Amino acid sequence: MSRSLNRKQDIYRINRDLFVLSYGALVAQLCKDYERDEDVNKYLDAMGYNIGIRLIEDFLANTGIKKCRSYNETVDVIAKVAFKTYLGITPTLIGGNDGGNSFSLILDTNPLDDYVEELPPGRSSLSYCNLLSGIIRGALEMIHLPADVSFIQDRLKGDDVTEIGITFLQKSNERKSKRNK
Amino acid sequence: MSRSLNRKQDIYRINRDLFVLSYGALVAQLCKDYERDEDVNKYLDAMGYNIGIRLIEDFLANTGIKKCRSYNETVDVIAKVAFKTYLGITPTLIGGNDGGNSFSLILDTNPLDDYVEELPPGRSSLSYCNLLSGIIRGALEMIHLPADVSFIQDRLKGDDVTEIGITFLQKSNERKSKRNK
Repeated sequence: MSRSLNRKQDIYRINRDLFVLSYGALVAQLCKDYERDEDVNKYLDAMGYNIGIRLIEDFLANTGIKKCRSYNETVDVIAKVAFKTYLGITPTLIGGNDGGNSFSLILDTNPLDDYVEELPPGRSSLSYCNLLSGIIRGALEMIHLPADVSFIQDRLKGDDVTEIGITFLQKSNERKSKRNK
Repeated sequence: MSRSLNRKQDIYRINRDLFVLSYGALVAQLCKDYERDEDVNKYLDAMGYNIGIRLIEDFLANTGIKKCRSYNETVDVIAKVAFKTYLGITPTLIGGNDGGNSFSLILDTNPLDDYVEELPPGRSSLSYCNLLSGIIRGALEMIHLPADVSFIQDRLKGDDVTEIGITFLQKSNERKSKRNK
């Protein structure tokens, strides 16, 4: 069904409202279809995963980015290149200074929920932007970096910022020792 | 739940791939959820309608466009301003020369199905881009111009181009006579 995405990057811009409103309509529809927030969250994550496993190919082709040498470098690329390219924002990166495998991306602004003031009534466990964590998880899996990706804080749930947590499932030294074999 | 969209137009650009892939994932998911193409088409149209009734407010605010004097002028704005603003393309406008109420927009290219080569197996009646016709229908309804909007030709169904038909439900002279009252 699909064709390669590999085209000139500069033609890839569309009006953000169309995406943001389409996304809002999707979430609203899912809330009608599924009673439990958990099921909506899973659905969004699964959709995001399917997007991520395709988007990564295009991302690598268009940016020319080669293999990252550490988890820290990988998450830095996600924050500074991927978020910037696709959503026009650069989250702040936290963690990784101790060589660990857990990181956070802090989003001061988030285009996806930019026009949303609060969660729909009775949907307090809805992870409105769960598509994003699914996309990151899918993209990372395609480059053999399986990770847990989830929202730790959410402005729509009353937190000051939105925080996406990324925990790589292999320890950093396991990767190094694999590479040295 | 929602906040006004009325912001500076120049910050409203995101990478198109993200939207196109998200839309593809949405259609793929709907095809899993609904056996009948007709139901997927209806769902996409309903989602589009909900987007259109919100998008029109933002569109009018950002473009400063005032009331159009004829159906011809209205469809001209849809083709040359709305499509250009939101999808970066300008469809060719056909019809309306006889003062009638039926028009067609011919899309030589269509970002929404840009990476799609063919319809999924067994989904020959799927109107892949039905979100677009729903958006136009919703937007027109909000400015008191009820219309039937549907895909007449579709590149994904083997046609040379994609054609969206717009038929206004009030005759042109009914509008004029209403205005003159």
